[in-house]
Amino acid sequence: MRYVSEHGDLGVTFDQLWSALEPVGRNARTGGYRRFAWTNEDATLREWFAGESAARGLDLTTDRAGNQWAWWGAPDAAVASNDAGVVIGSHLDSVPDGGAFDGPLGVVSSFAAIDSLRNQGFTPRRPIGVVNFGDEEGARFGVACAGSQIITGALSADRALSLRDETGTSMADAMSGAGRDPTTIGIDQETLRRIGVFVELHVEQGRLLGERGRAVAVGTSIWPHGRWRIDLVGEANHAGTTRLADRRDPTLDLAALISTARDAASRRNCVATVGKLHIEPNAVNAIPSRVTAWLDTRGPDELSVREVVAEVAKSGGAAAIEESFSGEVSFDAALASRLARTLDDAPMISTGAGHDAGVLARAGVPSAMLFVRNPSGVSHSPAEYAERDDCLAGVAALARAVEELAR
Amino acid sequence: MRYVSEHGDLGVTFDQLWSALEPVGRNARTGGYRRFAWTNEDATLREWFAGESAARGLDLTTDRAGNQWAWWGAPDAAVASNDAGVVIGSHLDSVPDGGAFDGPLGVVSSFAAIDSLRNQGFTPRRPIGVVNFGDEEGARFGVACAGSQIITGALSADRALSLRDETGTSMADAMSGAGRDPTTIGIDQETLRRIGVFVELHVEQGRLLGERGRAVAVGTSIWPHGRWRIDLVGEANHAGTTRLADRRDPTLDLAALISTARDAASRRNCVATVGKLHIEPNAVNAIPSRVTAWLDTRGPDELSVREVVAEVAKSGGAAAIEESFSGEVSFDAALASRLARTLDDAPMISTGAGHDAGVLARAGVPSAMLFVRNPSGVSHSPAEYAERDDCLAGVAALARAVEELAR
Repeated sequence: MRYVSEHGDLGVTFDQLWSALEPVGRNARTGGYRRFAWTNEDATLREWFAGESAARGLDLTTDRAGNQWAWWGAPDAAVASNDAGVVIGSHLDSVPDGGAFDGPLGVVSSFAAIDSLRNQGFTPRRPIGVVNFGDEEGARFGVACAGSQIITGALSADRALSLRDETGTSMADAMSGAGRDPTTIGIDQETLRRIGVFVELHVEQGRLLGERGRAVAVGTSIWPHGRWRIDLVGEANHAGTTRLADRRDPTLDLAALISTARDAASRRNCVATVGKLHIEPNAVNAIPSRVTAWLDTRGPDELSVREVVAEVAKSGGAAAIEESFSGEVSFDAALASRLARTLDDAPMISTGAGHDAGVLARAGVPSAMLFVRNPSGVSHSPAEYAERDDCLAGVAALARAVEELAR
Repeated sequence: MRYVSEHGDLGVTFDQLWSALEPVGRNARTGGYRRFAWTNEDATLREWFAGESAARGLDLTTDRAGNQWAWWGAPDAAVASNDAGVVIGSHLDSVPDGGAFDGPLGVVSSFAAIDSLRNQGFTPRRPIGVVNFGDEEGARFGVACAGSQIITGALSADRALSLRDETGTSMADAMSGAGRDPTTIGIDQETLRRIGVFVELHVEQGRLLGERGRAVAVGTSIWPHGRWRIDLVGEANHAGTTRLADRRDPTLDLAALISTARDAASRRNCVATVGKLHIEPNAVNAIPSRVTAWLDTRGPDELSVREVVAEVAKSGGAAAIEESFSGEVSFDAALASRLARTLDDAPMISTGAGHDAGVLARAGVPSAMLFVRNPSGVSHSPAEYAERDDCLAGVAALARAVEELAR
């Protein structure tokens, strides 16, 4: 490993950071993580971030949405001199039974990259920040990238605070319970001004790097993606005595919808998933009165995505109600090319997943992403994995990216 | 209405009984009933039964499973003289959001039939009993006909008491909470010996009577029926980044299974229903790691039922795990013919639904059923309905049946 030898004890630093995070929010039965916004696990992760920041003598600030920022250098002085900071980082929360890498790999790699730069005696010309964005997965309140969306204004404070989790607790109450004043949340221009450029390192959530035999890639864009709800209405009736011809069974529409989602997505180079279902009354001996299906669709262009959704809804004989939609995000092309050149002509790939880097890019912040090879491509699962050597290559790449941008 | 005029103020009696029951356990939002075993609603229904029994001077007893019996005459003396009683009745509990008729129509009609017989001055040669079987639907603890199955030994006391509801409460604790000593439950030969013959009146759960233009039918048999669980295992993964070709998505197996259930049942004159599903992790942006589907299958013969189940399981690429199965129950053929003749050559029909009369028949008790026309055929739903005139015809038919059997 060229990067490891070059950067001395990078592996030791990485391992130490990684092991401290490993047990937090891990479910013993599934091996997956349950790190949801404004829970005890979230507080433990925030304490860990504050501790690593303090251990490095970085200045910790918390923005209006509760995202944490650890600064090497003086970010406001740099804004005044028109040379705002280089920010790296990601998030620490998880989906239900998520993996260890989605999010934490970017934060751990950021601290390790700073250690590596300092070990080399690097003196940055611009301040360098590490960010921990809160509530990226939206696992608890249903809105992804809540932390970055709140400070950019893509998610209004009113809507955010009124979101509720499955037990009925609002985000406002959850924040209060975690010791944060919910009335302070909103657009945070002071924080945004400090970000001259943002680079988010993330585990790849597919297998392109494995196929190309490379450890690190540069992101070019995020596919258009959205979530739709489809209500299939039937008629509750006795499962034993109602003749097939007399039934209005919404599960038949569901079967058509699931098959069509796969077919329509396949024909248009999109992906479509029916990952969530709600059935009423959900009794073994009753024909359901209603099935609600949620459809997640993503693709290389918005037209294809919308065509898939329309075809799926038609096959179920019902309307698709849009719950969220994000158009394509193109990362800063010049920045992506510059990083790819710096990183030995790293491959450039697009992704079907949303990220805080996409939210910042949409808000006009020059942003980029680095992806670290995931041999199986599995993500949002306890089986999510990256090789240690590839993680260290990711740290080294991040350090070189920061060096390039901050020298 | 020939029966109404013949029986005087039958309609008034029926309406009074019906209105007293109407509000108990009714859900204001859905209009459906939630009358589950050993709840407050159940206690109210039992008090109503005890009150109607007392109002008629009947002797109330409660058996070892908590089923209630109201006797006109001395049931034990009749056993001693080898001429055990004529029992009528049904149940008062409901499925989740069930209708008003499934169960209560049989109990209300039984009290009304006794009033009618007394108004005519009928003097029974054998004792006449009205029964309220507890927990017929199995909505809370998952086992249907629990009350009749416990006293006949088809459901062991140990297994019954350890059944748990969705909140984890055992039947033993639920019974204790309702003021019953759970240690007394078990086979109840003393109660069974008192039943010379059992006739259960029930709302039809199909549309055969509507098609034949008749208000009342006699039951001949209960179809073989059972419940199977099918676990479809996939691989949790990111809904946005996992290429279609790399997915192991169990919802595709679910779609195949649902379609096959309909096709296979249709080809074999059976019915098959996928009424209950459980999805993990059930998140919009995750390919499910597992879908569990429950299959309810019923048909005119056991071989056909088992063929449907095998075909459905094969289509899902998984095994069907039998959770319960009941072979065909034939009601006493001579008794059914005698009743059909008595009731102006009433049509004779079989049913796909399980009933306490089926449990008693399987235990060797001569049993029969009367069905009252259901114009839409809808059952296990707030829309379940029978015309008042047809209900009164049912009461009259039940009274004639008792007269025939007890004179």
